[in-house]
Amino acid sequence: MFNSYGNIVRLTSFGESHGKGIGGVLDGFPAGIRIDMDFVQAELNRRRPGQSQLSTPRNEEDAVEFLSGIFDGRSTGSPIGFIVWNKNQQSADYDALKEVYRPSHADYTYQVKYGTRDYRGGGRASARETIARVVGGALAKLALRQLGIRITAFTSQVGAIKLEQEYTAYNLNLAESNPVRCPDPATAEEMAALIMQMKEKGDTIGGVITCVIKGCPIGLGQPVFGKLQAALAAGMMSINAAKAFEYGDGFKGLKLTGSEQNDVFYNNGGRIETHTNHSGGIQGGISNGQDIYFRVAFKPVATVLMEQHTVNADGIDTTLKARGRHDACVLPRAVPIVEAMAALTLLDYYLIDRTTQL
Amino acid sequence: MFNSYGNIVRLTSFGESHGKGIGGVLDGFPAGIRIDMDFVQAELNRRRPGQSQLSTPRNEEDAVEFLSGIFDGRSTGSPIGFIVWNKNQQSADYDALKEVYRPSHADYTYQVKYGTRDYRGGGRASARETIARVVGGALAKLALRQLGIRITAFTSQVGAIKLEQEYTAYNLNLAESNPVRCPDPATAEEMAALIMQMKEKGDTIGGVITCVIKGCPIGLGQPVFGKLQAALAAGMMSINAAKAFEYGDGFKGLKLTGSEQNDVFYNNGGRIETHTNHSGGIQGGISNGQDIYFRVAFKPVATVLMEQHTVNADGIDTTLKARGRHDACVLPRAVPIVEAMAALTLLDYYLIDRTTQL
Amino acid sequence: MFNSYGNIVRLTSFGESHGKGIGGVLDGFPAGIRIDMDFVQAELNRRRPGQSQLSTPRNEEDAVEFLSGIFDGRSTGSPIGFIVWNKNQQSADYDALKEVYRPSHADYTYQVKYGTRDYRGGGRASARETIARVVGGALAKLALRQLGIRITAFTSQVGAIKLEQEYTAYNLNLAESNPVRCPDPATAEEMAALIMQMKEKGDTIGGVITCVIKGCPIGLGQPVFGKLQAALAAGMMSINAAKAFEYGDGFKGLKLTGSEQNDVFYNNGGRIETHTNHSGGIQGGISNGQDIYFRVAFKPVATVLMEQHTVNADGIDTTLKARGRHDACVLPRAVPIVEAMAALTLLDYYLIDRTTQL
Amino acid sequence: MFNSYGNIVRLTSFGESHGKGIGGVLDGFPAGIRIDMDFVQAELNRRRPGQSQLSTPRNEEDAVEFLSGIFDGRSTGSPIGFIVWNKNQQSADYDALKEVYRPSHADYTYQVKYGTRDYRGGGRASARETIARVVGGALAKLALRQLGIRITAFTSQVGAIKLEQEYTAYNLNLAESNPVRCPDPATAEEMAALIMQMKEKGDTIGGVITCVIKGCPIGLGQPVFGKLQAALAAGMMSINAAKAFEYGDGFKGLKLTGSEQNDVFYNNGGRIETHTNHSGGIQGGISNGQDIYFRVAFKPVATVLMEQHTVNADGIDTTLKARGRHDACVLPRAVPIVEAMAALTLLDYYLIDRTTQL
Repeated sequence: MFNSYGNIVRLTSFGESHGKGIGGVLDGFPAGIRIDMDFVQAELNRRRPGQSQLSTPRNEEDAVEFLSGIFDGRSTGSPIGFIVWNKNQQSADYDALKEVYRPSHADYTYQVKYGTRDYRGGGRASARETIARVVGGALAKLALRQLGIRITAFTSQVGAIKLEQEYTAYNLNLAESNPVRCPDPATAEEMAALIMQMKEKGDTIGGVITCVIKGCPIGLGQPVFGKLQAALAAGMMSINAAKAFEYGDGFKGLKLTGSEQNDVFYNNGGRIETHTNHSGGIQGGISNGQDIYFRVAFKPVATVLMEQHTVNADGIDTTLKARGRHDACVLPRAVPIVEAMAALTLLDYYLIDRTTQL
Repeated sequence: MFNSYGNIVRLTSFGESHGKGIGGVLDGFPAGIRIDMDFVQAELNRRRPGQSQLSTPRNEEDAVEFLSGIFDGRSTGSPIGFIVWNKNQQSADYDALKEVYRPSHADYTYQVKYGTRDYRGGGRASARETIARVVGGALAKLALRQLGIRITAFTSQVGAIKLEQEYTAYNLNLAESNPVRCPDPATAEEMAALIMQMKEKGDTIGGVITCVIKGCPIGLGQPVFGKLQAALAAGMMSINAAKAFEYGDGFKGLKLTGSEQNDVFYNNGGRIETHTNHSGGIQGGISNGQDIYFRVAFKPVATVLMEQHTVNADGIDTTLKARGRHDACVLPRAVPIVEAMAALTLLDYYLIDRTTQL
Repeated sequence: MFNSYGNIVRLTSFGESHGKGIGGVLDGFPAGIRIDMDFVQAELNRRRPGQSQLSTPRNEEDAVEFLSGIFDGRSTGSPIGFIVWNKNQQSADYDALKEVYRPSHADYTYQVKYGTRDYRGGGRASARETIARVVGGALAKLALRQLGIRITAFTSQVGAIKLEQEYTAYNLNLAESNPVRCPDPATAEEMAALIMQMKEKGDTIGGVITCVIKGCPIGLGQPVFGKLQAALAAGMMSINAAKAFEYGDGFKGLKLTGSEQNDVFYNNGGRIETHTNHSGGIQGGISNGQDIYFRVAFKPVATVLMEQHTVNADGIDTTLKARGRHDACVLPRAVPIVEAMAALTLLDYYLIDRTTQL
Repeated sequence: MFNSYGNIVRLTSFGESHGKGIGGVLDGFPAGIRIDMDFVQAELNRRRPGQSQLSTPRNEEDAVEFLSGIFDGRSTGSPIGFIVWNKNQQSADYDALKEVYRPSHADYTYQVKYGTRDYRGGGRASARETIARVVGGALAKLALRQLGIRITAFTSQVGAIKLEQEYTAYNLNLAESNPVRCPDPATAEEMAALIMQMKEKGDTIGGVITCVIKGCPIGLGQPVFGKLQAALAAGMMSINAAKAFEYGDGFKGLKLTGSEQNDVFYNNGGRIETHTNHSGGIQGGISNGQDIYFRVAFKPVATVLMEQHTVNADGIDTTLKARGRHDACVLPRAVPIVEAMAALTLLDYYLIDRTTQL
């Protein structure tokens, strides 16, 4: 529990926004996987601030240093420790927060729960913690690649602007062609305009990330409490600012009846497949070989550059106006985080499935 | 993993739809809790089939037999074993399914994963498994009651018919006054009519259950991977037929900007509270003392009494028409299951929180 | 934690000595294993009381009833629930214990820890709980048999009477030929005589069980905290009355220097083996393909049929003379329990090892 | 499993002997504990090589760098990451080991299990990994100190030289007064002479460490699989070179009958205590308030500076003579490691016990 994720492949995360760095330990990772350092760094770069004018001007380098578990370019089966050193913190920006609880942040709940908190930049509650997830997820992707499992996430909605069609209607390879990470360039431009508008106002906006997993073998998932969708939901809802998770038809499926929504089986040249995929690639908690897809909603960032009412540590009403460098919309940078949590979950479940039959 | 749920308070579930019974073991349950047997049975009765004309005509008695862990009417701190014996199975109804994979059921994925399956009534994949959750949840509620934590779920949507206002607009005590378990009697009647219409057609319909938790102390939740919303999402998404989870503003919040959605703190007579509750009672993964509320979408039951195309175990295309006794809509019976998973999660997290400070 | 054992293959145990029965749930057991019911019952019979004049005259039938997870004679991969109903309890024997703490029993520590206890026959602390282990272990043995892994335990010491040579000097198949379960018939008779002498005095005696595992593949064990010897030690030390664990040379090895104790490798017809086996088949926490062997010491049963001083629940000094039917020496009946814990551990570690490389 | 230890308080360890360093993450550590950095470093110094002529001449600095989880001198409840950077490795010493399996080391088993290994200085299998345990244990001791729980280990046997009396006969404070860490100065000198004799020969010798825990509250321990002695045994047997564990009377108790070994209760001025302590402070798996004591046997170090037969990676018989800097006896340096594992176990079990009653 606490700061570890996964059963066989288990990521333990540590670090604070304005401490020495953000790190982690990936344990249970299979031995013998070639570690493509450039790929890991590229994944971190997809998450890093300052990568476009849409995101915060903090220009953090976020270079990963591996501490253990890799020898001669391959994983050894021993735990892979790593750290991304913090470099560009401006902790003085946060002195004002020592005694004030920012609305819709974790300041107040941490203070009550722990009796103390590192108030600089959100401390442990900062989304900077997701660096550990992206590094762990990048490693998981390297293993999944060998298994033919491919994970692609993209921004499908920002505020009220959204992709109107199913993911199958788009060329998902285009997602990385624009800073919003939306596979439809026209929609991406609209989204970017909305984000810039928010940035100018000092306000923020949320949205939806869709994730598609292709090539997943049949059989992943533990069918009662460990259903594959339950594991994915837990992983996604553990990401900062995530407010909702749906897979397959999700909420939209409420408009259909059972006879309309069932995915009929057919024999596709010796392979049992389904014509439709309302199920989102999971039936009875177990992957059925079709595409797995799900959507995660993220609320607007809580830090707005506008004056807000709040209380201080003495319970006295006060006002607060955030300073510092913040994102007007986290969606573009959250895309690799969603992929990372999916990758960690899939690799874990793949390995668990290996124990099903002798 | 597998068939256990929870960290400190851990429910392990066993049993199949047409085996000897459905049972479980609740371990880590606090010692000294008075076990109100009538309450546990009443909770099971809320889940049981045949309780109204809206549900399946199977009239299962579903009486729980406790096997251990209770002495002189109180929990002893030892594991509480229990079983609900199966009594009213008509396994012959399922002989036809031995060689055929029902669409959108777990038949095919189980067969591939395990190389075998108990095909009678869905076997382990049957929603009858949730009996174990309801018993475990009822016990958890007894402990939570001592702590002043109260959990209420209700049907808020069936097909396209839904409650139009927030939960605070309704008298939730009315939910149990009608067989749909909707707190608005007029809407409940519409929902009931839609369900009856589906039943007559042999079709099925899904919907949404909303759950509200009142009296939760500040501080529950493990702030990174074990965020309270992540644990609730995992619990809910592990329920058969659940397709989506959202808490607080969820998907709806995408229409708002950060400045509109933030929950401003104020001092309410010495207690720090928020004017609004877009956060759904959880900030930074930790309960903040406001109401926790979330919504779970359930797809229509996959078993429809209409002819459907599918394949058999040899991969040959065939058709199938379900027999047996099935629900046209699981929502009313899923209400206590949602509450049960919430209760198990809350009690577990309450006890975990006790270890935060010396 | 608490009442579950194992990681992938996990046994959850429940039940009290004088409650309805002793049961368990074996989760994560591989699918497709043929369940030989006669074998499981035979293992239980090896543990049962009343099987010879050496053990308690309680003649418990201890017949196992499986509740789930088996279909058409094979495991399905779903949790295997089971129970052995209690039948022959004489709870009135224990009324006197309600207010008195038996020396070296769990009465006092349970009372303080839980604030309550089932005082009848030791309740949850009774060695009758080990029934769940023997059933789970019997199932594990059925899986291990397919893998060529064979586990044999035997009584190697009772009081001061012990086998003087290494296990390799004896025909271990003879262990089951006498009620003491000692592979040397002459020593077995001495041990039996000592036990009968204790029984007549109303006193008790301890001893040592040696366990040998043959056919274990190379590679089982998680090399840091999950060393194979650490897992075996935890399993053995969790058995009631176990006081010590040693593997390989154990305490005896203290007489040797490093150069004397090292197990030199050689090439045995293409297979790398060791001439000696001081290591006990485990190096660096990982099985090396040689025999695994270890010894477990059990203290004398705490229940003696003699008057002892103690205190009652009010802290007042008093005396106590046990009634009831008790073993003068648990060793013979503990042999299958040691084997069961070894089997559960080995199967768990075998399955974990499957996740080491892709 | 794998590289994590503990349930609530969980230490995850990483690092190799000749990699960048040895580190860890201590998760679930209570918030608000003042971190005495000097104490942590002093504990590391007790483990470090080169502290006396008895140990290896490697003079490693072993300074700990904390990476997270501490703010304003106190634990925050967030995971505490830390690392001890490797500084003084002479990896070239190990080039010869790339293709040769050292007898009674983990080289061969790692190679088979993982298909690869970091052969430099034992890699992950090096006892240098225990640095992470000592750091974690030092933090645990700081928390236990607040609870009045004190842990003291000492060398009680080296080869055949041993303390002849029970621990109660010695002034344990004297253990740290000599480099052997034996509380009897005269015996310590004999032990030191034996170790020096081994060192001169290039041979090695094992021994026993005794550990005593005072001030443990009544009630720690989970009574079935999680008995306190089972947890301690697992912790101790996970230490490199540990071969045996016994608590209370252990093997010695086999000479006594039940009536001789029982610990009779009496009322000691309102407190229920036992006259004797054969039980070693644990009854029914739960601490009873008396001293907890146990003994751990360590085999001689496998690395001897003498020529030994072995095989190489091609299975060809060869000889090997170790170079490098090694201990002739690990006992003195293992004392703080035993204490560390005891401290981690006790703190974990203390916090678990907090969840027993509401």
